[in-house]
Amino acid sequence: MTIKPQHCALVSVFAGNLRRLRLERDLSQEALAERAGLHRTYIGMLERCEKNVTLYNVERLAMALGVEPWEMLRG
Amino acid sequence: MTIKPQHCALVSVFAGNLRRLRLERDLSQEALAERAGLHRTYIGMLERCEKNVTLYNVERLAMALGVEPWEMLRG
Repeated sequence: MTIKPQHCALVSVFAGNLRRLRLERDLSQEALAERAGLHRTYIGMLERCEKNVTLYNVERLAMALGVEPWEMLRG
Repeated sequence: MTIKPQHCALVSVFAGNLRRLRLERDLSQEALAERAGLHRTYIGMLERCEKNVTLYNVERLAMALGVEPWEMLRG
């Protein structure tokens, strides 16, 4: 089954939290990408709801932002 | 990058919560699969930490179990 990530409510919640937490920490997309071992363009895609992220990458991003993974899914 | 899902702590937390919530509701893997529109064997793989689940499927499973998606990631 395929679905556009922007049609999944949880992907939007995650995208909003990712951007908010990154900006609160005064991190560029590039700086966050480096901390998390991911690519800068991937961070941009996540923040624009263009990717259906997996739990493994949720965990990496949560660690890079210093929050619990579940906090990234809370609306 | 590839990683074995069982080496991701968050996948294990999710797997444990999935199984606990399913059993608390007295649902078989088959019954949960039907509610969530997923395949029974996929539910089994998730509970055995064999799959790195995406947020879209976290959302479907949370809805089928009647919980908030973030509750499925809480340790």
